[in-house]
Amino acid sequence: MATKSLVAGIDLGGTNMQIGVVDASNRIVGREKRKTKAEDGADAVIERIAVGVRTACADAGVEVKDLDAIGIGAPGAIDFAKGVVMEAPNLGWNGLPLVEHLSSALEGRPVALENDVNVAILGENRLGAGGNAQDVLGVWIGTGIGGGLILNGRLYHGALGTAGEFGQTILFPKAALGHRTLEQNCSRKHVVDRMRRLVEAGRKTMLSDLADESSRIGSKLVAKAYHAGDELTVNVIDEVSEFLGASIASVVTMLSLPRIVLGGGLTEALGQSFVDRVKSEMDKYVFPSALRSVEVVPTTLEDDAGLLGAALLARESISQSD
Amino acid sequence: MATKSLVAGIDLGGTNMQIGVVDASNRIVGREKRKTKAEDGADAVIERIAVGVRTACADAGVEVKDLDAIGIGAPGAIDFAKGVVMEAPNLGWNGLPLVEHLSSALEGRPVALENDVNVAILGENRLGAGGNAQDVLGVWIGTGIGGGLILNGRLYHGALGTAGEFGQTILFPKAALGHRTLEQNCSRKHVVDRMRRLVEAGRKTMLSDLADESSRIGSKLVAKAYHAGDELTVNVIDEVSEFLGASIASVVTMLSLPRIVLGGGLTEALGQSFVDRVKSEMDKYVFPSALRSVEVVPTTLEDDAGLLGAALLARESISQSD
Repeated sequence: MATKSLVAGIDLGGTNMQIGVVDASNRIVGREKRKTKAEDGADAVIERIAVGVRTACADAGVEVKDLDAIGIGAPGAIDFAKGVVMEAPNLGWNGLPLVEHLSSALEGRPVALENDVNVAILGENRLGAGGNAQDVLGVWIGTGIGGGLILNGRLYHGALGTAGEFGQTILFPKAALGHRTLEQNCSRKHVVDRMRRLVEAGRKTMLSDLADESSRIGSKLVAKAYHAGDELTVNVIDEVSEFLGASIASVVTMLSLPRIVLGGGLTEALGQSFVDRVKSEMDKYVFPSALRSVEVVPTTLEDDAGLLGAALLARESISQSD
Repeated sequence: MATKSLVAGIDLGGTNMQIGVVDASNRIVGREKRKTKAEDGADAVIERIAVGVRTACADAGVEVKDLDAIGIGAPGAIDFAKGVVMEAPNLGWNGLPLVEHLSSALEGRPVALENDVNVAILGENRLGAGGNAQDVLGVWIGTGIGGGLILNGRLYHGALGTAGEFGQTILFPKAALGHRTLEQNCSRKHVVDRMRRLVEAGRKTMLSDLADESSRIGSKLVAKAYHAGDELTVNVIDEVSEFLGASIASVVTMLSLPRIVLGGGLTEALGQSFVDRVKSEMDKYVFPSALRSVEVVPTTLEDDAGLLGAALLARESISQSD
């Protein structure tokens, strides 16, 4: 009977959407992956999501009406009370009532909306690296740096609804605008920009061949150079680890947090040695020293974290309204 | 009948203790102030607290047995589960079971123990500057920098019990040990040390006459020079405001906090113009910009914040155990 209790989880990204039908044991019993194609406009994207959910349902051998609820993580700022995506630059959305539109497109099924990083952290915490801790900070290091906070087992939005923006931590108050925040000093984009500038200034790296090409230096290439011991890459990543460790330490100290989950493309590419390095930097700065027992762990669910978290969110939203 | 419900609140400092008997309307109906004299040892201090509580009761025309509970704020790290002061450098205490000892000395009345800054923030939040907000960060700028966090209307201790240590925020990860934290860059002690060094390096200030004396430059003297427009003092305090504003911004951004209460000796001496300056610095750094609506207010209860907060804590501890 428990397996009858189905929900759908949607991880909506700027490039792709991942959709899963998930049973009460948190198993993915149906799947669909599609391009987002945000350039086609919001209506087309919502229609594409709806078709994707139907396809995932078919894959699971069920219909949309069999879903108890649908959860979706979207890349932007959310108005939780209204179910509106307030601002999603990657999608070109502003003030889009996604909950209402998506529910209409899917036979009135209830829809729960969250930020995409938040649902991934929820998924990792319950079903992956977080070990279902009651209090967790998630830090996603990719093109940018996303963050999310779980307190008392639930995503924490704070009094003004915007909590968890860890990437916006101020690292250098006196720096020029655009160089002050953690994200502006430690994201993959920053790492690549910084390496380009150092190469232009005459520093050598095994990545230099790529520096004068227009081709994108991705996380995997950075990780390859890092693991090969390329001096410049190691220096830059060590600095990033130090800044991340110090910023995480301030939050751990402030909230007495027992667990940090590190995810995102750059973390996944660099792997455990990077996570260990961030942890040892954090240990230098936490107060009191007892907080050196705090765990720092990498994500384990990879691409499924978002859709599983969105499915958990959907399930939570029904149990709340019961 | 409500006025019969009496508790005592104790604000235990390194130099003085303030004791009050407080009624159900949070009025102080009996008072006592004594020297702490920590050098006499823990037993003597506990006895002095007990005598002080009896004296405050006499002042209120009641007896110790009429108290429903006793709350105490102590300057140190607390083990809440055990009622133990783990470490209080100002008092020379290590692992002192204060709840047990104080309850024994006061006819077995229940005793609730908290950190001294936390009880002051609790008092200010409920009865003073905080306006009884559900979520507040308190920042006390004195010899050091203390912090305390109220979430969902209650003091937040976090999973590992040490939350709220805002003064330990990392401001300069790359600085030498002893110069990395907010406290090490913005406390009254830091302000005075920094001004002494600048005077030794040839800078002029109306405080320089005092720089070669051994006499202590206190918050009031700093405030006098600041309000007189003394250039060096204004420069140093402006820098402190910038660092405080940036550090507060990171916490406000992370927790989406609606309200900050600024207290402590330096804040009280510098007054509203300093609070306004910290607020305008914070506004430069918060994300999203909607958080510029966050209020930053100075304390209003002055010396009574601690004992009133301790009294509130006492009252809460009984209603919890009911």
